[in-house]
Amino acid sequence: MLQPPPAEPGMREEEVDTPALILDLDAFEANLDAMAALLAPTGAKLRAHAKTHKSAVIAKLQMARGAVGQCVQKVAEAEALAWGGIPDILVSNQVVGARKLNRLMALARIANVAVCADDAEQVAAIAAAAEAAGVRIPVLVEIDCGAARCGVAPGPAAVALAEAIAGSHHLRFGGLQSYQGSAQHKRAPEEREAAIGHAAEVTRRTVEQLRQRGLDCPIVGGGGTGTFALEAASGVYTEIQAGSYTFMDADYARNQVPPPFRHSLFVLATVMSRAIPGVAVVDAGHKAVSVDSGLPQVWQRPSLRYVGASDEHGKLLVEDGEAPALGEKLRLVPGHCDPTVDRYDWYVGVRGGRVECLWPIAARGGMA
Amino acid sequence: MLQPPPAEPGMREEEVDTPALILDLDAFEANLDAMAALLAPTGAKLRAHAKTHKSAVIAKLQMARGAVGQCVQKVAEAEALAWGGIPDILVSNQVVGARKLNRLMALARIANVAVCADDAEQVAAIAAAAEAAGVRIPVLVEIDCGAARCGVAPGPAAVALAEAIAGSHHLRFGGLQSYQGSAQHKRAPEEREAAIGHAAEVTRRTVEQLRQRGLDCPIVGGGGTGTFALEAASGVYTEIQAGSYTFMDADYARNQVPPPFRHSLFVLATVMSRAIPGVAVVDAGHKAVSVDSGLPQVWQRPSLRYVGASDEHGKLLVEDGEAPALGEKLRLVPGHCDPTVDRYDWYVGVRGGRVECLWPIAARGGMA
Repeated sequence: MLQPPPAEPGMREEEVDTPALILDLDAFEANLDAMAALLAPTGAKLRAHAKTHKSAVIAKLQMARGAVGQCVQKVAEAEALAWGGIPDILVSNQVVGARKLNRLMALARIANVAVCADDAEQVAAIAAAAEAAGVRIPVLVEIDCGAARCGVAPGPAAVALAEAIAGSHHLRFGGLQSYQGSAQHKRAPEEREAAIGHAAEVTRRTVEQLRQRGLDCPIVGGGGTGTFALEAASGVYTEIQAGSYTFMDADYARNQVPPPFRHSLFVLATVMSRAIPGVAVVDAGHKAVSVDSGLPQVWQRPSLRYVGASDEHGKLLVEDGEAPALGEKLRLVPGHCDPTVDRYDWYVGVRGGRVECLWPIAARGGMA
Repeated sequence: MLQPPPAEPGMREEEVDTPALILDLDAFEANLDAMAALLAPTGAKLRAHAKTHKSAVIAKLQMARGAVGQCVQKVAEAEALAWGGIPDILVSNQVVGARKLNRLMALARIANVAVCADDAEQVAAIAAAAEAAGVRIPVLVEIDCGAARCGVAPGPAAVALAEAIAGSHHLRFGGLQSYQGSAQHKRAPEEREAAIGHAAEVTRRTVEQLRQRGLDCPIVGGGGTGTFALEAASGVYTEIQAGSYTFMDADYARNQVPPPFRHSLFVLATVMSRAIPGVAVVDAGHKAVSVDSGLPQVWQRPSLRYVGASDEHGKLLVEDGEAPALGEKLRLVPGHCDPTVDRYDWYVGVRGGRVECLWPIAARGGMA
């Protein structure tokens, strides 16, 4: 059931079978360097989010540039990283269910593993799993800093949960998880500033209330590619959890001109039909490129506009320009990188027009 | 990189790890039987579309009930079926690129394999690949019967392409591919009738023009779950290519009251947070359930409404009813089955509340 790789090292990019996930290595490395340089003067550390890349290979490259560890959203992602040698992993999410918790505790013997909680019942379940496995792990309190999805209310509710964690023999209080997910893609900079200003303020107050109860926060984590500069400058957040900056996507790029990061991730597609005048059809529909944050863009071909995704077909309108040839290969910029990566088994790393490497996407797929 | 199965035979459904793809075997078998019964009086045969299920196991169950073969959209799907013992496979789509064509020709030694074309250049490429492999395969002419995506114009252009196919020593003319994809999800029955009425009429005229040139159509294929009764009753189509009927999805079900098929496919999800009043969060976001045709519905829980999908979270509003418990498992009805199946490695077959079987989803993923 493993799909064979669509390329071999040394191949020219236009020989790669499609659809394929292309990583432009020069742009990718420039993004890793740019994030390290942007965070260096702030004092906040990067704990890059592996939900974007799902790859221990990429995690290692981020840590070589100063990232203190990785975030993941799911136990399957934590497994892929721990098995790939990543030493410090935070599940920045709730893990509910005995089977998943047991899998997580098994990893605590080969890596530092932490997890979040927003419910006292869940804290008890994590403690029971840790006890059964004979490990002791840090648990962060997730607070709702504005996105109204997961997280207890900042302030006294968070303090009470932190005390429950600190009171368990099998857990340690790991700090606060305070990610404002709904602010990441807001179009106007002032909207993002207002949302993160609020998040930082309620987080700061909660940190202070915890300190008054004798509880220090080893980690105050949050921030994504859309807002990380604000969290990093706040003086409240100690760890930045951006992930998409490694690849960038069409939606994030719309929000900052010029964007501080380059597009490094593309879906390579083949023109498979041009039977309808003014239309070219490529072999990358929404099974090959995620459309939840808008349709992909055709890279460096302004006369081609991707106007419709069906399961296996992408429909391009040919506007004013020359129609592409049958069999021609085009790079698409995904609207949203995370779920696009999730469709593939392999990164095809390209430099100077040649395939340089193939990296497995070890944690792809629907399983948690 | 293969994800382990989320369940074992004999488990209770509520013990299955989540997110997981649940197949309700009673409903699934009823759907297979219902389609066989609906087509029997029409004379049209079923060539079920495996793009929906991606599984040789399910293909065999369809063929045991009279399907003459399977359709696929991609070479990777054809490989999964041929390797799983399916003897008759039509790629109801264009296959462009030497590497893909070579893979397809390799299958022609273990199964009857046919493919579509809508371009003379492509016919030449298919013939060259067949010659190199020492095989002779049927090629169908795809016509544009109204969806304006792939396909040559009906009538003389289609006849010219059919003559090019028939004139090759390495190919056989296989008939017409005439699928009206854009009609499948139209809401009003009269809109679907008008679209298929047009498609059947242009197809009928093309079949007649081919006959006048001495070319018979072994296959006239088309029809999907939204319209198959119209194609089957037309007297023009010989093969029906429906796929989604096996599972049904929320979008197809909206169009027919009562729908002739039952929901048999579900995403099982766990309530992972209920920290925000009036909200429950499940561990199935749009990486776990496709949202391109609308959000999923919560099965048999009218007081729970799925209102937002982020990458790994699904947000439910609790309306008037009792809030679900932390850790409770809920079935979601996907808005669109095909791309939802594509996210998973395993079907978890359930009957009477117990896991009965695990079937691999052999052809999932982005590769073509």
